[in-house]
Amino acid sequence: MADAYDKLHSLSKTMALMASVEGLLDWDQETFMPKDGIEIRSQQSEILASLVHRQRTSKSFAKALASLIDLETGEIKDDRLPSPQIAALREWRRDYLKAVKLPNAFVKQFAKTTSTACHVWKTAKEHNDFKTFSRHLEKVISLSRKKADILGFKEHPYDALLDLYEPEMTTSFLTPLFSRLKLPLTQLIKDISAKTPFQEDFLFRHCPKHKQLDFSHKILHKMGFHPASSRLDVSVHPFCNGMHPKDTRMTTKVHPENIMTCIGAVLHEGGHGLYNMNLNGEQFGSPLGQQVSLGIDESQSRWWETLIGQSYFFWQHFFPLLQEELPEQFGGVLLEEFYHAINAVKPGFIRIEADEVTYNLHVIVRFEIEKALIEGTLKVKEVPDAWNAKMREYLGISPEFDAQGCLQDIHWSLGFIGYFPTYTLGNLYSVQFFNAFEKAHPNWKEHLAKGSLDFIRDWLKENIHKYGRQYTPSELCQRVTGKPLSEEPYVSYLKKKYRTLYHL
Amino acid sequence: MADAYDKLHSLSKTMALMASVEGLLDWDQETFMPKDGIEIRSQQSEILASLVHRQRTSKSFAKALASLIDLETGEIKDDRLPSPQIAALREWRRDYLKAVKLPNAFVKQFAKTTSTACHVWKTAKEHNDFKTFSRHLEKVISLSRKKADILGFKEHPYDALLDLYEPEMTTSFLTPLFSRLKLPLTQLIKDISAKTPFQEDFLFRHCPKHKQLDFSHKILHKMGFHPASSRLDVSVHPFCNGMHPKDTRMTTKVHPENIMTCIGAVLHEGGHGLYNMNLNGEQFGSPLGQQVSLGIDESQSRWWETLIGQSYFFWQHFFPLLQEELPEQFGGVLLEEFYHAINAVKPGFIRIEADEVTYNLHVIVRFEIEKALIEGTLKVKEVPDAWNAKMREYLGISPEFDAQGCLQDIHWSLGFIGYFPTYTLGNLYSVQFFNAFEKAHPNWKEHLAKGSLDFIRDWLKENIHKYGRQYTPSELCQRVTGKPLSEEPYVSYLKKKYRTLYHL
Repeated sequence: MADAYDKLHSLSKTMALMASVEGLLDWDQETFMPKDGIEIRSQQSEILASLVHRQRTSKSFAKALASLIDLETGEIKDDRLPSPQIAALREWRRDYLKAVKLPNAFVKQFAKTTSTACHVWKTAKEHNDFKTFSRHLEKVISLSRKKADILGFKEHPYDALLDLYEPEMTTSFLTPLFSRLKLPLTQLIKDISAKTPFQEDFLFRHCPKHKQLDFSHKILHKMGFHPASSRLDVSVHPFCNGMHPKDTRMTTKVHPENIMTCIGAVLHEGGHGLYNMNLNGEQFGSPLGQQVSLGIDESQSRWWETLIGQSYFFWQHFFPLLQEELPEQFGGVLLEEFYHAINAVKPGFIRIEADEVTYNLHVIVRFEIEKALIEGTLKVKEVPDAWNAKMREYLGISPEFDAQGCLQDIHWSLGFIGYFPTYTLGNLYSVQFFNAFEKAHPNWKEHLAKGSLDFIRDWLKENIHKYGRQYTPSELCQRVTGKPLSEEPYVSYLKKKYRTLYHL
Repeated sequence: MADAYDKLHSLSKTMALMASVEGLLDWDQETFMPKDGIEIRSQQSEILASLVHRQRTSKSFAKALASLIDLETGEIKDDRLPSPQIAALREWRRDYLKAVKLPNAFVKQFAKTTSTACHVWKTAKEHNDFKTFSRHLEKVISLSRKKADILGFKEHPYDALLDLYEPEMTTSFLTPLFSRLKLPLTQLIKDISAKTPFQEDFLFRHCPKHKQLDFSHKILHKMGFHPASSRLDVSVHPFCNGMHPKDTRMTTKVHPENIMTCIGAVLHEGGHGLYNMNLNGEQFGSPLGQQVSLGIDESQSRWWETLIGQSYFFWQHFFPLLQEELPEQFGGVLLEEFYHAINAVKPGFIRIEADEVTYNLHVIVRFEIEKALIEGTLKVKEVPDAWNAKMREYLGISPEFDAQGCLQDIHWSLGFIGYFPTYTLGNLYSVQFFNAFEKAHPNWKEHLAKGSLDFIRDWLKENIHKYGRQYTPSELCQRVTGKPLSEEPYVSYLKKKYRTLYHL
């Protein structure tokens, strides 16, 4: 049985290697590729994707898997296997069954439709032209609905799509969860909007690119990254490409007039990066060497970006360093002022620029709309009105044009329906995990204020990262926090933090 | 038949796309990859190489090819095909027959042996330890001899190896050619060594990295490169990776105390880069979209590095720019002095640092030794003595230790036997081509002195680049220059240039 398991892992490793090459193509495309290389790059990516898909659904892989787990019932053929390996088999089977369900012709049609839709979306966003995009979005929604049917679901077609990003998450869990979250958030925003806004002008002082990057490297170094196994580059949209635990590639974006964009991105992608770096390299190619879900992965990025990176204690150590690096810009700013400024709450139109309080309402707007689209209770042409109405209701503001409204995100054009909720799940997980962390490290604030980040990274590794997909997201949450996922810790965290900040 | 041809091209394009992904892995490894990523990178490369080899030798490819050309006899099945396509079929067949001749087991054994040998070579070079390396070199030579037998040859086993890099080149052509070259070169070196050396100290003044790169970009821009379809990066060993005509990646190396190393590398790799950029993109994946041979490719790099980049006329335009960029370093230097300095002839131990006059003698030393090794007339353990004796005979100097002698180059460890001669072939081709260019552009010196490089690039494209492998190296040489390859134009060029420079 050990041999059979090793053989399965070896086959799976080959696929992971190919997939990591695909990852390199993406990374290169967003960082260093000369722009005219795009046509040949698309063709390279297409060929690799098709090879990987063929391997994932190959008879030889199915046979290797079936020798260890019954593909139909999920019954493990040898109970003497250690439990992590049993968990890995369960996940391998899960992936395999999903991969074989989707016929090749459908996969190609979906890829072609979304590729065109994405292309159209870019121009539509530039020209603020929802109508042109809507014809393509209709096709994407219709194909996504079909995808849900092919993949299958018990209660709600949206479940099948959710499950692609957050295994075992359901609409029936998410809908009331998000409803319970909405109310306190909108209330908090109202309370804050009655107060005097924080002074923030110093955040927008000119900071040269190389200074921003130097400071970013200092943060990453403290987080535990080493140049021998990681990189930071610049791209239009920041991302983290975890090719292998020994090769973590992060990017940030640099606005000379907004240094916090860069720092926020570095902490965010650094959070993803640490998760990747702390995966077990021996398990590369096995589910035990992979991130659990997008939601858990996002909990790691938001942990560093917000819970750590927007905390007073983090900046107790780092603000003096920032002042040293950029004396003209921050020399005359007090830590207290800086801390307030980076936590200013201001309803805005753009999700990726949103503060901690308003962020999740942006996500809920998208969730409610895409759920309704999949249900068929909302038509694509009604999206702009629905969007604007929800924005007014939850955030008190309504975009004047679709480019800063329903056209702002790339996700729908790519067919990523069911993806948005993982952003909020990430936030909820992060605070629930943090409460567990706080119990283990009651003195975390003092350590953090001294610039120590190692103990945080180690806790995350020991409690979350090192397990890979050994536990499902909900198992992991229960195991780490002793409770199922809930909005309550997150709401408490926000209330406590922002009531203090704004003297509510 | 057009359909069959398109099908063949399409299959071949898929292989070329995969091979270009392999190229990206190499490029990334030498430029930006964090160093701990090497283990996973080797595994990625191995998988891709094996996939490409499998496709190249696949039944479906053989069938598509055989529908157009008889694999045994080489007879074209449809004479109505245009002659470039007929030439392409001939080259496709050539590649295919080579690929299928080598059994998988042999390819793997060769790869494993050379991978270990290369690893051992690196340490052996550091520790000046030929003895340890020699056991591995023996295996490489023995396998290369076997490779020659498998590939087959008419006259000399070395022919089979040469043919891998320079199609249709033979030992019986090369041996007398190199002999005829040796004499005038050694004589020229003797004559020069009796003269006062040129002053060169200003070439070794400190020039900051970014200044060297800024100037390099200016040269590449003038050569016709655009950032939308090319890049210049820094690596330990300069190279050019031509992924596609629309994605040309070059590297250089930067020594702050030796700016000419960087400029020489930029011109050299730029020459390779232009060849790649000027290939017909429509023919990507077909022999009509590939470089003819290593020798012809090297003629392009040496053309720009030496015939243009070490000419007085090139620097008439570029030296004032260099002075502007680096006034402290070059402000007080006369163009005449600079021109002399960059053409100083000095016998040295290291091939890659050699000047125009001594360079080919380094190559001939290697050629004579590897030919004898393959013939069996020289034993591996005798290599250091043979090397040192030849260096003394041809260059008048003998290395004191093997690291600056027979251990200096990576080629043998990688099993690249038959590769070295292409360096000298490149030099010979370059001058023979240049004479043809001079006939077409008798006023080239004046144009070049004004900083115009376009007309040179265009001539190369029209006469060499655009044909891909439509002509064999010797056909191309005959076509462009009206004569078969000979050492005579090269020797005349050197004599004329260096007699003037050194007042001989």
